[in-house]
Amino acid sequence: MAPVKPIEIRGRTVAGGAQPLICTPLVGRTRGAVLDELAAVMPKKPDLIEWRIDFFEAIADTGLVIDLARALKAGAGDAPILLTCRSSREGGERIPLADTGVVALLEAACAAGCIDLIDYELSNAAPDLRRLRAVSREHGVAMIMSYHNFQSTPDAAALVAKFTAAAGEGADIAKVAVMPRGPRDVLTLLEATLTASETLQIPLISMSMGAVGSLSRMFGWVYGSAVTFAVGKASSAPGQIPIDELRAVLAQVRRAVTGG
Amino acid sequence: MAPVKPIEIRGRTVAGGAQPLICTPLVGRTRGAVLDELAAVMPKKPDLIEWRIDFFEAIADTGLVIDLARALKAGAGDAPILLTCRSSREGGERIPLADTGVVALLEAACAAGCIDLIDYELSNAAPDLRRLRAVSREHGVAMIMSYHNFQSTPDAAALVAKFTAAAGEGADIAKVAVMPRGPRDVLTLLEATLTASETLQIPLISMSMGAVGSLSRMFGWVYGSAVTFAVGKASSAPGQIPIDELRAVLAQVRRAVTGG
Repeated sequence: MAPVKPIEIRGRTVAGGAQPLICTPLVGRTRGAVLDELAAVMPKKPDLIEWRIDFFEAIADTGLVIDLARALKAGAGDAPILLTCRSSREGGERIPLADTGVVALLEAACAAGCIDLIDYELSNAAPDLRRLRAVSREHGVAMIMSYHNFQSTPDAAALVAKFTAAAGEGADIAKVAVMPRGPRDVLTLLEATLTASETLQIPLISMSMGAVGSLSRMFGWVYGSAVTFAVGKASSAPGQIPIDELRAVLAQVRRAVTGG
Repeated sequence: MAPVKPIEIRGRTVAGGAQPLICTPLVGRTRGAVLDELAAVMPKKPDLIEWRIDFFEAIADTGLVIDLARALKAGAGDAPILLTCRSSREGGERIPLADTGVVALLEAACAAGCIDLIDYELSNAAPDLRRLRAVSREHGVAMIMSYHNFQSTPDAAALVAKFTAAAGEGADIAKVAVMPRGPRDVLTLLEATLTASETLQIPLISMSMGAVGSLSRMFGWVYGSAVTFAVGKASSAPGQIPIDELRAVLAQVRRAVTGG
């Protein structure tokens, strides 16, 4: 199997190094809706919780975002909180903040000590990416640098280049999410993930989206993807599988693939 | 998804065209052991039953083989019987029959009307392969032509050439089973299966063996493999998964991949 690198936050390995970690997104529009999602999701024991703040209607109010992040942290038990403001250019919601506003918000969240990871796209302006890298590191917040393509799957070399670029920018974790046009594109994503996992030292996250891409959510970890995203209450990307179903398949796949 | 071609026997689609068909091998050494296996397996409702006669200690007695084949046919309900004498050159047991004896035995089984399919390796002498093709066709028995490699996984072009050679020899079904040396080889097998399924008109069967290869037993149908082999009572090749577990995973994968 591919050498999956465990994800560490402040020196602690998340979920004891489980392979893969299961991450559940929260996509509510209001404080109440997000807290309801957390309450619905926690009994399903996700390893990681991603709050997609581009869905949050009060995103322009930094105080409200940080208050809610604190509430999530308090309610999430051992599961780290990943804060993501997915750019509308890469599949996120449209938000009333310019890029500078997003950077300021993520900086404030890092400084407030209420989150464990942030996700920021590689396609952002280099000065913003580097500033957030420095600020997140200063506050012990892990940084995912990501690439999304909702139209197609670039070739394996191009995908490896994205993982490599993230590592080159000092990412703690590199993420690639792409849309397949058929089952062959899922193989391309897995091949690229395996190649990157053999050459890079940081943990990787990858997935092929949509219905056929859901294969990668079930067996991408065999090719080096450290995290798989699953639906808790509502999905944040096409092809996500309900967490209970995903966990059952992962257990079977793990048993078969490890021969145990 | 890949265009999986349904397997037909005497004009009837097996198991209503289920994708994939689940085939269970019988590997008992005595008549009693084989019948016990059948009895243990039938409640698990395999779509296809393979009797591996290279495991059968009385293989040199044509009458005993045909008698037992008749008993299996009588006890197998709607599940067709696949008769396979796997060559020791391709992973089978050592048997007290020369190649000519195997051909004569398979001919007799076809003529006796008690089996539905035979499997014969492409690596056999061309006159034997062609003779069995003619005889099986004459008796309405479907013929699988197969390639096995227990050492490694040749590159995708070489695997596509095996599928293509089988089609060129008039096989009803082409089968390729190879051993991976790592997870990348599983992608190679899936890629080759997909390519062959896009170009050939006959159903294909493929699998990557061993622990990591078991992925292909769960997901190979998405890439065009019409049959997956599962353990009923005892396995016949490395990496086979118990039929109940495989069926559960297949149901989950089908739901995810078809978006339903």
